[in-house]
Amino acid sequence: MRLKGKRVVVTQIEAFMGKDIVELFRKEGAELVADNRDLCEPDAAATLIGEAGHVDILVANLAAPMLPSTVVDTDDDAFRAMYETMVFPLHRLVRAVLPQMIARRQGKIIVMGSATAMRGLPNMAAYGSARGAQLAYVKNLGIEVAPHNVNVNAIAQAFVDNPSYFPKSYQQTDEFKARLRATAVGRLAHGWESAALALFLAGDESNFLVGQVFPFAGGWVT
Amino acid sequence: MRLKGKRVVVTQIEAFMGKDIVELFRKEGAELVADNRDLCEPDAAATLIGEAGHVDILVANLAAPMLPSTVVDTDDDAFRAMYETMVFPLHRLVRAVLPQMIARRQGKIIVMGSATAMRGLPNMAAYGSARGAQLAYVKNLGIEVAPHNVNVNAIAQAFVDNPSYFPKSYQQTDEFKARLRATAVGRLAHGWESAALALFLAGDESNFLVGQVFPFAGGWVT
Amino acid sequence: MRLKGKRVVVTQIEAFMGKDIVELFRKEGAELVADNRDLCEPDAAATLIGEAGHVDILVANLAAPMLPSTVVDTDDDAFRAMYETMVFPLHRLVRAVLPQMIARRQGKIIVMGSATAMRGLPNMAAYGSARGAQLAYVKNLGIEVAPHNVNVNAIAQAFVDNPSYFPKSYQQTDEFKARLRATAVGRLAHGWESAALALFLAGDESNFLVGQVFPFAGGWVT
Amino acid sequence: MRLKGKRVVVTQIEAFMGKDIVELFRKEGAELVADNRDLCEPDAAATLIGEAGHVDILVANLAAPMLPSTVVDTDDDAFRAMYETMVFPLHRLVRAVLPQMIARRQGKIIVMGSATAMRGLPNMAAYGSARGAQLAYVKNLGIEVAPHNVNVNAIAQAFVDNPSYFPKSYQQTDEFKARLRATAVGRLAHGWESAALALFLAGDESNFLVGQVFPFAGGWVT
Repeated sequence: MRLKGKRVVVTQIEAFMGKDIVELFRKEGAELVADNRDLCEPDAAATLIGEAGHVDILVANLAAPMLPSTVVDTDDDAFRAMYETMVFPLHRLVRAVLPQMIARRQGKIIVMGSATAMRGLPNMAAYGSARGAQLAYVKNLGIEVAPHNVNVNAIAQAFVDNPSYFPKSYQQTDEFKARLRATAVGRLAHGWESAALALFLAGDESNFLVGQVFPFAGGWVT
Repeated sequence: MRLKGKRVVVTQIEAFMGKDIVELFRKEGAELVADNRDLCEPDAAATLIGEAGHVDILVANLAAPMLPSTVVDTDDDAFRAMYETMVFPLHRLVRAVLPQMIARRQGKIIVMGSATAMRGLPNMAAYGSARGAQLAYVKNLGIEVAPHNVNVNAIAQAFVDNPSYFPKSYQQTDEFKARLRATAVGRLAHGWESAALALFLAGDESNFLVGQVFPFAGGWVT
Repeated sequence: MRLKGKRVVVTQIEAFMGKDIVELFRKEGAELVADNRDLCEPDAAATLIGEAGHVDILVANLAAPMLPSTVVDTDDDAFRAMYETMVFPLHRLVRAVLPQMIARRQGKIIVMGSATAMRGLPNMAAYGSARGAQLAYVKNLGIEVAPHNVNVNAIAQAFVDNPSYFPKSYQQTDEFKARLRATAVGRLAHGWESAALALFLAGDESNFLVGQVFPFAGGWVT
Repeated sequence: MRLKGKRVVVTQIEAFMGKDIVELFRKEGAELVADNRDLCEPDAAATLIGEAGHVDILVANLAAPMLPSTVVDTDDDAFRAMYETMVFPLHRLVRAVLPQMIARRQGKIIVMGSATAMRGLPNMAAYGSARGAQLAYVKNLGIEVAPHNVNVNAIAQAFVDNPSYFPKSYQQTDEFKARLRATAVGRLAHGWESAALALFLAGDESNFLVGQVFPFAGGWVT
C-alpha cells in the first residue's frame, strides 16, 4: 500500500498507460480520480483539477492518435494536432495543479512520455517533436519547482504494450516482430512494468529526483 | 571560401544568430537569401522558399521574444506563442524545402536551437519546451532523410552573444554577470563562434552527421 | 518484502552505499551476503562469489578513497588506484557471477556509480574517469546479457549522504554548504533514497531495463 | 591554412585516425610531431612531449587491438590491456603537456574516442568501458582547465574507416555489411571526415567548447 491515502489524478485513462497506472496505483491504496475527458478543450484541465480538489499526485498521461507519416506528408494540421493533444494540455494541467502543491510544499507530477524524443525514427517527427516538448518542459519545470518541494519527472518509454500504440492486432504483424529486434530485451514491456516506474516516481522514494527523464525502452534507448 | 556557389536561406536575420551567420556565410562565398519576414504567418515559409528557388542549405534561425516567467504565470497564449514562433514555422520551412533536396539527393538543414532544452532552468519552461520540440524534431527528421543524403542537425546553444537574448544593456547587469558563473568558460561566446559551428554543419565535412544535436554552451551543457 | 527469498551480494559494505543497501534490502526480505573484503586482491571477487554460492542479485558497491586533486598533481599511481579499486574489481565480480545467472536465465547486477562521470567537475578527473569506465561497462554489458534475461543497470549518484564521500564532519563546512547550491533540491539525499532506487533495479519491476544509467543527483544531472 | 604555425602532436599515427589527422592537419599548415612510439611504456608520454617542446595542440589518438569477446571470456589481462593502452597513456600525455598550456593560457587537447562508450554493443565491454573512461576524463578535465583557457574535447566516433577497426578485408564481409544497417547514413565515414571534426576542435572556432563529447557516428548515436 505504497500510495495509501494519496489522491492521484490520472488523465486519458482509456489511452496509453492509463489503464495500467490506474490498476497498479489503486492496488497500492491510492484514491484515484481516473479521468477520461478530452483535454484539448481549453477549460478541461482546470475543470478536472477543480473537481478533483486536493491532488497529491498528477499523472499526466496524454496520447495522440498517430499514423506514421513522412515529414513532407505531414500537413500543418496533423503536426499541430500533436501539440494540441499532448503539449498544450500538459501545461494547462500543470498550471491548474501547481498552486496547491506549492502552497502545501508537497506534490508529484509524472509525465508519461516517449523515448521517440530521444532517439530518432523515420516517419515520427511530428509525434516525436511533441514528445520532445514534453520532456524539455519537465526538465525546466522540475528545476523551477524543486525549491517548493514538488517533484516533476518523466518516463520516456518505448516498446511498452498499450492500446494506443501497440493494439493487439498490430502485435501479430511481421512489421511489429521486426521492430522488436531493435530492443535488446526482445519483447514489449508489460504495461504494469512502466506503471511500476511511475509508482516509484509517485512515492517518497523519489523525493530527491527532479526534472529528470527516465528512459524505459528495453535497451533501445539507455 | 568554404560555401562557394552554395545557395543558403537564413531566416529571421535580425534576430538570434541571423546577423552572425549571414556575415560568416557570405565571407565564405555563399549566395545568401537573407530573409527577415514574419514566419508565423501560415504561408510565409512556403512563399520564402518559393522565392528562393534552388536552396542548398537552410539555416532555420527562429527566435521568440522571451521574458522569464514562472510556469504558473505563463498563460496559454504566452505558452502557445513559443510554438507559433519557433516550432510550427520550422516544420513549414522544412516541408517547403525538403522536396527539392530529396530530389537532388543533397541538402543541409541546420536548426539554431537552445541548450535550455537539455538542462533545465527556472522560469524558462515555455521557451525551453519549444526548443525541446525543435531538437526532437531534428533527431527524428535527421534519421528519416539520411537515406536521401540530406543532413539535418541542430546547435543547442547557450550563453552566446545575440541581440534577442543578450542585448548589450543586459550584459551590464549584475544578474548577467552572476549567470556567467554557470559556464566554465566565464564569458559569452561571440556570435561568430556559434556561426562557425553552423558553417561546419553546412559544409561537406558534416556529410556523415545526421539527426544530431550539438551543445554549444561554454561547458554549461556538455 | 519485495526481495523475499532473493540471495543478494553487497560488496564493500562499510563504504559508499553499503550500509544503506544492506539495511533496506534486509528489511525487504533479502538473504544477504554483506561483504567487506578488499576486492583489489586479484582472487578476492571469485572467492567471494564462490563462498556466496547461489546469487540472484549482485550490488557492486565499490568506492575509492578520493581527495580532490588537479590533473597535473595526480600522479600515475593515484590515477591507477581508482581503476584498481573501482573498475578492475567490477569486471572480476561480473565474470565470477555471470555464468550462474546466464545458466539460470535470471539475475540482476546493480552498479553503484557516480554522476561525476556524466558532468565534469574540477579536481575529479581520476575519480570521474574511473566512474565513467563503470558506466560504459554497464551500457555494453547490459546489452550483451539482455538476451540471457540478466539485467545490468547502474545508478549514477551525486550528493547522496555516505561515509566515503560526505563524512559528517565535512557536512559542517562552508565548502559543503556552497556545493549544495549546485543541486536544485538543496540537500543531500538520504542514503536510503539511493538504496530505494537500487531496490527498484533489484526487483522484477526492472525486468525491462538493461544497460541503463540512472542519474540520482537532486537535479545536478538529469 | 587553418592551422598555420601551430605545433601539433599526434600520437600512434599508424593506428586509428592517425594517418587521416596527420594528412589533413599538414594540409592546413600545422607543424606536426607525428609520432608512433608505444605509449604503454610509463615514460614514453613524457619523453614524447619533452622532445616535441612547444605544443599548441595535442591529438590523443590511442587505439588498442580489439577482438570482440563476451564479458565472461574476457580475462583480467585482456581487460586491463585496454586501460594500459588507451586510458593510462592519455593521463600521462595530458600531465606532460598541460603545464606549458596552462602557463601560456592557450592549448587544445582533442581525444579521439569511441561512441561505443555511449551506446552499448555485445562483446565490446572491455573496449567500451576504457573508451568510457576517456570520455569521462575529458568531461572533468575540460571543466577543470577551462579557466586556464585550455580546451579539451573528445570525438566519440563509430563507423569511421580506419585501419585499426575496419581493415579493408573486413569491409568485404557480410557481417560488416549487416552492421552498416545500424547507421542511418548507410556507409562508413571517410577518415578525413572525422579528421575534419578534429580540425574544428583544434582551431579557434572551438574556443568556447570545453569538456564536450561529440558523437560522430552516422546517426548510430546522436
